[in-house]
Amino acid sequence: MSSILKGIAASNGIAIAKAYRLVEPDLTVEKRTITDEGEEVSRFQKAIETSKSELEAIRDKAKTDLGEDKAAIFEAHLLVLSDPELLTPIEDKINTDRINAEFALKETADMFVSMFEQMDNEYMKERAADIRDVTKRVLSHLLGVQIVNPSMIAEEVIIVGEDLTPSDTAQLNRTYVKGFTTDIGGRTSHSAIMARSMEIPAVVGTKTATEEIQNGDMVIVDGLNGEVHINPTQEVISQYQKEYDNYEAQKAEWAKLVNEPTVSKDGHHVELAANIGTPKDLKGVVENGGEAVGLYRTEFLYMGRNELPSEEEQFDSYKAVLEGMGGKPVVVRTLDIGGDKELPYLNLPKEMNPFLGFRAIRLCLEEQDIFRTQLRALLRASTYGNLKIMFPMISNLQEFRDAKSILLEEKAKLSESGVDTAEHIEVGIMVEIPSTAVMADLFAKEVDFFSIGTNDLIQYTMAADRMNERVSYLYQPYNPAILRLVKMVIDAAHKEGKWAGMCGEMAGDEIAIPILLGLGLDEFSMSATSILKARSQISRLNKSDVEKLSEEVLQLRTNEEVIEAVKKVIEL
Amino acid sequence: MSSILKGIAASNGIAIAKAYRLVEPDLTVEKRTITDEGEEVSRFQKAIETSKSELEAIRDKAKTDLGEDKAAIFEAHLLVLSDPELLTPIEDKINTDRINAEFALKETADMFVSMFEQMDNEYMKERAADIRDVTKRVLSHLLGVQIVNPSMIAEEVIIVGEDLTPSDTAQLNRTYVKGFTTDIGGRTSHSAIMARSMEIPAVVGTKTATEEIQNGDMVIVDGLNGEVHINPTQEVISQYQKEYDNYEAQKAEWAKLVNEPTVSKDGHHVELAANIGTPKDLKGVVENGGEAVGLYRTEFLYMGRNELPSEEEQFDSYKAVLEGMGGKPVVVRTLDIGGDKELPYLNLPKEMNPFLGFRAIRLCLEEQDIFRTQLRALLRASTYGNLKIMFPMISNLQEFRDAKSILLEEKAKLSESGVDTAEHIEVGIMVEIPSTAVMADLFAKEVDFFSIGTNDLIQYTMAADRMNERVSYLYQPYNPAILRLVKMVIDAAHKEGKWAGMCGEMAGDEIAIPILLGLGLDEFSMSATSILKARSQISRLNKSDVEKLSEEVLQLRTNEEVIEAVKKVIEL
Repeated sequence: MSSILKGIAASNGIAIAKAYRLVEPDLTVEKRTITDEGEEVSRFQKAIETSKSELEAIRDKAKTDLGEDKAAIFEAHLLVLSDPELLTPIEDKINTDRINAEFALKETADMFVSMFEQMDNEYMKERAADIRDVTKRVLSHLLGVQIVNPSMIAEEVIIVGEDLTPSDTAQLNRTYVKGFTTDIGGRTSHSAIMARSMEIPAVVGTKTATEEIQNGDMVIVDGLNGEVHINPTQEVISQYQKEYDNYEAQKAEWAKLVNEPTVSKDGHHVELAANIGTPKDLKGVVENGGEAVGLYRTEFLYMGRNELPSEEEQFDSYKAVLEGMGGKPVVVRTLDIGGDKELPYLNLPKEMNPFLGFRAIRLCLEEQDIFRTQLRALLRASTYGNLKIMFPMISNLQEFRDAKSILLEEKAKLSESGVDTAEHIEVGIMVEIPSTAVMADLFAKEVDFFSIGTNDLIQYTMAADRMNERVSYLYQPYNPAILRLVKMVIDAAHKEGKWAGMCGEMAGDEIAIPILLGLGLDEFSMSATSILKARSQISRLNKSDVEKLSEEVLQLRTNEEVIEAVKKVIEL
Repeated sequence: MSSILKGIAASNGIAIAKAYRLVEPDLTVEKRTITDEGEEVSRFQKAIETSKSELEAIRDKAKTDLGEDKAAIFEAHLLVLSDPELLTPIEDKINTDRINAEFALKETADMFVSMFEQMDNEYMKERAADIRDVTKRVLSHLLGVQIVNPSMIAEEVIIVGEDLTPSDTAQLNRTYVKGFTTDIGGRTSHSAIMARSMEIPAVVGTKTATEEIQNGDMVIVDGLNGEVHINPTQEVISQYQKEYDNYEAQKAEWAKLVNEPTVSKDGHHVELAANIGTPKDLKGVVENGGEAVGLYRTEFLYMGRNELPSEEEQFDSYKAVLEGMGGKPVVVRTLDIGGDKELPYLNLPKEMNPFLGFRAIRLCLEEQDIFRTQLRALLRASTYGNLKIMFPMISNLQEFRDAKSILLEEKAKLSESGVDTAEHIEVGIMVEIPSTAVMADLFAKEVDFFSIGTNDLIQYTMAADRMNERVSYLYQPYNPAILRLVKMVIDAAHKEGKWAGMCGEMAGDEIAIPILLGLGLDEFSMSATSILKARSQISRLNKSDVEKLSEEVLQLRTNEEVIEAVKKVIEL
């Protein structure tokens, strides 16, 4: 039977494919008495064999796709599956206690895991993790449930999950993943941002996708209207095929602007840049006519792994991006970890309010080894293109001064050891904390540029966690309070002859763009896929009109009044 | 041996007394095989008897101090201790399984607790809680550890705890509690605020007080310098006795100002008000010459209990405060729950960032029954004094409009049913969210007054959790960003002929007072104990001088620069 879910349109486009549930299966185990021990032992051995051949396939694929290095973990898992010290006691338990294989496995494995974990030895702790992973796999076969394995996807699918973590998305292969839909999240959740960066249609916040969609269901993700169709009729599929064609036609129209500058109807130039997460995203930037990288989120280099990336690894990535942009500006944001982005290997203490906690520049100024390694990699890469360095979560001038002087120290050290760095590197800050917006006039005397990070700026200014559904109605991008802070920042920059950009979601939003153009924003950095549409919109606006509009909306009282005012003036 | 702990001076004054540790004892139970069952059973019975007489004493004391009502819970506990359905199986277990009484008790009690808790029946769930409480008490006797029982303190003590929750402090008897010291917390943590409101010296954030101080140790809490002396020498005690006398002398000097108005050297009047939590705090307000109650935190009415307070209960409290202030202004803040202040009986979902979550007015606008009950109680009490109503955590104008219209609806309903309310009640808001400060010019057209809540305003503006020690250095009251927002609010109020107050910690701070006076703040609301000192400080300041100072500091760049500038100009 076909049905429709409503959600939040998180990434444009339409996708039609079969569902793949990225949901941890239920591996709860019950104790049962068995009658035929021999049969139970052979059932256990069969599950071991199936797990082995699965792991071998994964290992081989990992070797080809990711290199020997990353495949080693699966080698370790295979060793566990051949270890008599683990297997024999389980078979003994089945025979002696006459209990089911699942229970015997779970009990024995738990014992080893807890034993190894208590040892004060990194190597043994890793073994505990191996046993835990392998046990899951064998249990899934014994219980007849499917374990999720996104890296093994080899056909076109729509991913269905509760939420997608950054490490989930890092494993997805964009050749096969056509779209995705989640139970929770909003337009600015990480899964939504990733979807736009990967250019795949997505609908988030459906509440019940994982309940209502089974593996293999035919699914349409309508990322334009925020709808998910489950097992649609042929009629609906044809309709969507038509809508897909229309969307492609509109994109073709926009595509004509790919090599054009961004100019308003009355001749005012601005820069449209892209937000990226990895060098792989450059392809999308070029294809969509990005004039710069306005935000390179370096934290993806640090995630989905077990240790910090080396200076060399970082250097390679930064160089690749700078070269890939061929001399166009690349704004690299230094590590913004903490908050909702955790690095397990840093062992940061749990915080009561992580969004108001020890993150980003706060962490970098204290864990200076991490920070200096990144800065050295950036400085060394700086000769390969037009690098600008940006510090995140700056809340007061002292932090900026401290961060900049560490940068200059590393630069001087490199120069002493004969390593070349670019002559002039602009050093700027994210403006995403209210105090910094309010003090922008004084910051502008010391920084080279501002980039307004609206996702965080809005949540702090309104004191509302953007990931918390109970207060998400307070995440109000058009609240005049936000617009006034944005104006303060732009005016402050211009007064000192500096430039002001924006790299939050708002920069690519069709309601916000007229206001931001009117306020004089110099650089708009957005998902690459939004660039051509934005360029098209700006080409139809008169700067003089939107200047008047932006003055007016600053005197309005609510988010809704602003939306109404924009809609009255602007054809959308 | 004597030793000294350094901490944060959280409440002025000096206290010398014996330590009382408010720390949950370790009640972990191990299973042991015993040899003499008879002896074990009689050990168990003895623990039961001791627990009974203890509970009888507590019940009797509760009856006298708190009334029959509050004593009922201990009656219920006594019933549990006489229940053969609980006691017989424990004794059976000791006899049959030959195990120790602790283990037999724990196992049996746990079974009953989990059985009762699973029932869908409020009465049985309460029984589960009773059994859990009683089990703790009996276990403490079996294990020979001391259970904490702050309501039974009957000699002068210094309380030593990790942190004190609002419900801990609610149980303390201020006749006997001379001071306290905690491991964690800062000047604006609730324990610190409570200490000032109870007028007892406190040092918080010592990190190790609970490790280093034993029950009965002689302790000096130096709330002026943030030091805790453990088992000091006689010499140190004499020194402190002298310092105590000096402090008392200075207080006597200040006390002369108790009936004086608050006037600067050059004749500018301001109002010094007090923050209170319960009607009991009024005594301190009157004794310290408070000209108003600038903040009545009503959430204490809702805490440390199992259900919402009735309209009558609330009415009684509000009436008591209004009458107690004899016609002087009383600003009542409506319920500010959520964040770090939880009400278990509301069953609110756990949030990732509670400070940015579903709290205060956000909750009240959704749970309107709770809100309307409070508003009715306030309206009915309004005829007994000079009531002003204030909504907390307002972040946008729509919220204020919604809250005010609910208030007007309840007023109209009361009037229809013939209940009198005051003719004119001022309705204002807390300004503690950056968006509201930035929009103060437009808010000022709709509200009757502002009260700036600096504790939250600072943490949101700087995006730093004030309870998180890793980022507490970013809690910067004198950061020019904060001062600029304060100025926006004051100027906006005056432009519309409204008044602006401040009820955060900053209002009573000797560095901040000159700046705030210079910016034109109308009302300063602080801990009652800070009022006379502040009045004395203001009487020595020229408004014209501090106006110049406040203009200057708005152009400084860091918190530290502001402190320096103030210290240069002002004698402290």
